[in-house]
Amino acid sequence: MTDMRWGAWGVDADRTTLSDQVLELLRQGFGVTPGETSTASTEKVSLADSALSAAAVDAFRGEVGADQVRTDRDSRLLHVGGRSTVDLWRRRAGDAHQAPDAVILPGDHDQVLGVLRVAADRGVAVVPFGGGTSVVGGVEPERGDFDAVVALDLRRLNRLIELDEVSMIARIEPGLRGPEAEALLAEHGLTIGHFPQSFEYASIGGFAATRSAGQASSGYGRFDDLVVALRIATPRGSLDLGRAPASAAGPDLRQLFLGSEGALGVITEVTVRVRPAPAARHDEAWAFADFTTGAAAVRRLAQAEALATVTRLSDEAETAVNLAMGGDVGTAGPASGGCLLIAGHEGTAAQVEVARAVTATVLAEAGGRSLGTDAASGWRAGRYRAPYLRDALLDAGAQVETLETATSWSRLDHLYAAVRDALTESLTAAGTPPLVLCHISHAYPTGASLYFTVVAKAADDPIGQWTAAKQAAGDAIAAQGATITHHHAVGLDHRAWMVAEVGPLGLDVLRSVKAAVDPAGILNPGKLLPPPD
Amino acid sequence: MTDMRWGAWGVDADRTTLSDQVLELLRQGFGVTPGETSTASTEKVSLADSALSAAAVDAFRGEVGADQVRTDRDSRLLHVGGRSTVDLWRRRAGDAHQAPDAVILPGDHDQVLGVLRVAADRGVAVVPFGGGTSVVGGVEPERGDFDAVVALDLRRLNRLIELDEVSMIARIEPGLRGPEAEALLAEHGLTIGHFPQSFEYASIGGFAATRSAGQASSGYGRFDDLVVALRIATPRGSLDLGRAPASAAGPDLRQLFLGSEGALGVITEVTVRVRPAPAARHDEAWAFADFTTGAAAVRRLAQAEALATVTRLSDEAETAVNLAMGGDVGTAGPASGGCLLIAGHEGTAAQVEVARAVTATVLAEAGGRSLGTDAASGWRAGRYRAPYLRDALLDAGAQVETLETATSWSRLDHLYAAVRDALTESLTAAGTPPLVLCHISHAYPTGASLYFTVVAKAADDPIGQWTAAKQAAGDAIAAQGATITHHHAVGLDHRAWMVAEVGPLGLDVLRSVKAAVDPAGILNPGKLLPPPD
Repeated sequence: MTDMRWGAWGVDADRTTLSDQVLELLRQGFGVTPGETSTASTEKVSLADSALSAAAVDAFRGEVGADQVRTDRDSRLLHVGGRSTVDLWRRRAGDAHQAPDAVILPGDHDQVLGVLRVAADRGVAVVPFGGGTSVVGGVEPERGDFDAVVALDLRRLNRLIELDEVSMIARIEPGLRGPEAEALLAEHGLTIGHFPQSFEYASIGGFAATRSAGQASSGYGRFDDLVVALRIATPRGSLDLGRAPASAAGPDLRQLFLGSEGALGVITEVTVRVRPAPAARHDEAWAFADFTTGAAAVRRLAQAEALATVTRLSDEAETAVNLAMGGDVGTAGPASGGCLLIAGHEGTAAQVEVARAVTATVLAEAGGRSLGTDAASGWRAGRYRAPYLRDALLDAGAQVETLETATSWSRLDHLYAAVRDALTESLTAAGTPPLVLCHISHAYPTGASLYFTVVAKAADDPIGQWTAAKQAAGDAIAAQGATITHHHAVGLDHRAWMVAEVGPLGLDVLRSVKAAVDPAGILNPGKLLPPPD
Repeated sequence: MTDMRWGAWGVDADRTTLSDQVLELLRQGFGVTPGETSTASTEKVSLADSALSAAAVDAFRGEVGADQVRTDRDSRLLHVGGRSTVDLWRRRAGDAHQAPDAVILPGDHDQVLGVLRVAADRGVAVVPFGGGTSVVGGVEPERGDFDAVVALDLRRLNRLIELDEVSMIARIEPGLRGPEAEALLAEHGLTIGHFPQSFEYASIGGFAATRSAGQASSGYGRFDDLVVALRIATPRGSLDLGRAPASAAGPDLRQLFLGSEGALGVITEVTVRVRPAPAARHDEAWAFADFTTGAAAVRRLAQAEALATVTRLSDEAETAVNLAMGGDVGTAGPASGGCLLIAGHEGTAAQVEVARAVTATVLAEAGGRSLGTDAASGWRAGRYRAPYLRDALLDAGAQVETLETATSWSRLDHLYAAVRDALTESLTAAGTPPLVLCHISHAYPTGASLYFTVVAKAADDPIGQWTAAKQAAGDAIAAQGATITHHHAVGLDHRAWMVAEVGPLGLDVLRSVKAAVDPAGILNPGKLLPPPD
């Protein structure tokens, strides 16, 4: 498994550069001049000695083997956190004070149990680590009240344990990255159908632990919808949850561990629904007069249960930028003004044929104009490229980050305006007026998500600049009664709004669950749950 | 709101009688001779005085008003339990020792909170009561360690609070029965689409608290799938859960209270997805050579995402009985041998036309032979009649009860055989060899439910007779790794198998949640969770 670069997304071979046209746009639009920041490197980073005692190292080695407890500098630095823009600014500044004291690589469920037992006995914080792609501080090695913290890297749990082609379910281990899991299933002509933007590096366990949603989730369902069963290791033992496709045997405990973000246990097996790999695909671009009209069309699709596998509607600003950038941010088409919608169908040839005809009828009735299939090809080609573009923009001296939320259809307009205004006001007040782009990334019969991309000139203190903007956006989301996160999860960055999300008694419930499975509190301290008042 | 008869389902006007042909079948097949038992009546019931102190009555009256705390004999007897066959045998025997000490009828969320506060302060057990249709002991007035127990009848919480036709969601109160909720929505041309066999008497709150599944759930989704948000009253205050159609803000706490069966809180509002009332319906019957072939056909439908709104496959025995009884148990058709499948489509005319063509293609390819629409009409006419038939069978001296489970497709055959064998062996050993009927009531891409109906001659001790058979069936289900209940819930009757369902640590998690919201343990004692070892 190839590790990502320390201070940027993915690997060098896949990096992107900005065209002269884009650089000129940044200069004219934001006053950004290239060369103000430089790419991160580990060379200048100073790293404290590991705080893990020799006895603790020995105890962990007793559980997983001597080779699988690593305290070397490179291992520790590679587990210093996730891939939010703030994470990247920190690394560009050479800040790695949060590096874990060791990286532990268990080989199976029982070894995970053993590591958790040792950690609980010795008071060592444990941060489960999959692909390291969190954009909300979810894998930050916080030590809480403990003296030491270890990253529990799950990459060795990488098997397809069992494939049941009658029931169309696969039991897989959490350390498999998206492409690895898909490759194992492709040997049998199958797919999970889960393709978030982080797909190339994110892991199966991470998808489950964060309630991930992918670009094709309007067709295949969110990852949490696909999970049939979970195996979980906790400091107090194992949980095996999920005995049927559906059950009325009390509360659905799987739903406590989906989204548990490593704070309630370590997911060691995920049993997931699979489908035949699609024999046919059809991507089509559509133009709408404006975002409101386009959103109403998506709503009609969703409520007619005729959503395309991929259904994505950009607002006017995102549509214009995509056009100007020639597809750099993932979609492009010959729309002149208005809004671009991508409708991508997958399935058997017959399914695609039927479904795209239904979609076309609904979209045309709702005021859409087909731009054809060519105009949609840029979307598929660029679907995993945005994080590389972010690195290039940071290199060029821009601030760029995304955030997302969801609400019911009747409240979507207000939410859209409130978040856009909050971001614009905060960044303008900081002297760096932003461009705010938005798209509907996921649609449901009862509502939709909004995914915002923000671009501005980077301030001298880019972390403070973004933290203030994020606070303003999060407060606006909470005030609107929307969810603070539709698919990025909570981590550190959203925990302050969890009280708005579930109320004080909801937090008590979550804390009581944590106390039941992790009485010492060693599991991913500080994530998901805000500190008690 | 009309109360059900004390010792039988529904109201007298809807009762049914057995034809001479069926009575002859019972005599020949099981040695059952009519007139051995008699219909229940409250006249001969002796009822202990209410154990609720005058001070407690006054305190509850302070919360809900003097008229809404009832200690009269009729009110108490009408809340003595649910409608399992064992419940009915008890009432036929004049056993009402479990009657609650009072019935309290709050008018809104705040009054529910007030009642719970008083109950927690004074140590009074509270059993939330909706339609009283539980078949698993879910509304049995167990007092646990407390001196008194009250039934909390939610019938006055009966409003459609808010209808959002843009988002297609309705916020409704839990005391509405199925037909009442549908009537309020029908004024707007809408439906929830939830039609369990108990539909005519069961309540919205009960659907949520028990994870109900209905006859049309293959099309509309189970009730838990339809819930967008919940408001819950607990002794420690309120919970408002669900802020978006989907969220990644940690664990989904709604899923702790769906299926909570009154043991974790009282559901006081349910926000539920609604759809346009169907403009078109098409019911068609299909014949298959045998249950295995029919099940494979249903699997193909489910995995092609082409399930009909109603998809129900009877095994050979159920098909033969239906034929013999002329539709008395809900389905009938001119199938001579083999198995009967009902495929019912609902939606717009265009949706039904497309969907039924797809269904027909898949079923024909899988070996099905259409019996046409007439052969399916008996199913719709009889869809809510089975509980009345049960009463008539009990009157005639038969033992009759149902139970259900679910598993993955690859394990369905084994589960079917194991449960059928367990029931047959237990009842045969008791000297009352049974007829065991089965149908697939709900199908999913990864598996299906099995719904068993058991008929035998009633033994002298019919409760002991059924309890032994149920124990054998439940043990077989647990041993097969299937869920102990797909849509009847846990109540008292399934709680012993909860450790098989979620494991000892899963029980600890549930107990910790209960302790967080109900530290005094007043909410529905003894239900859902087995007593600690």
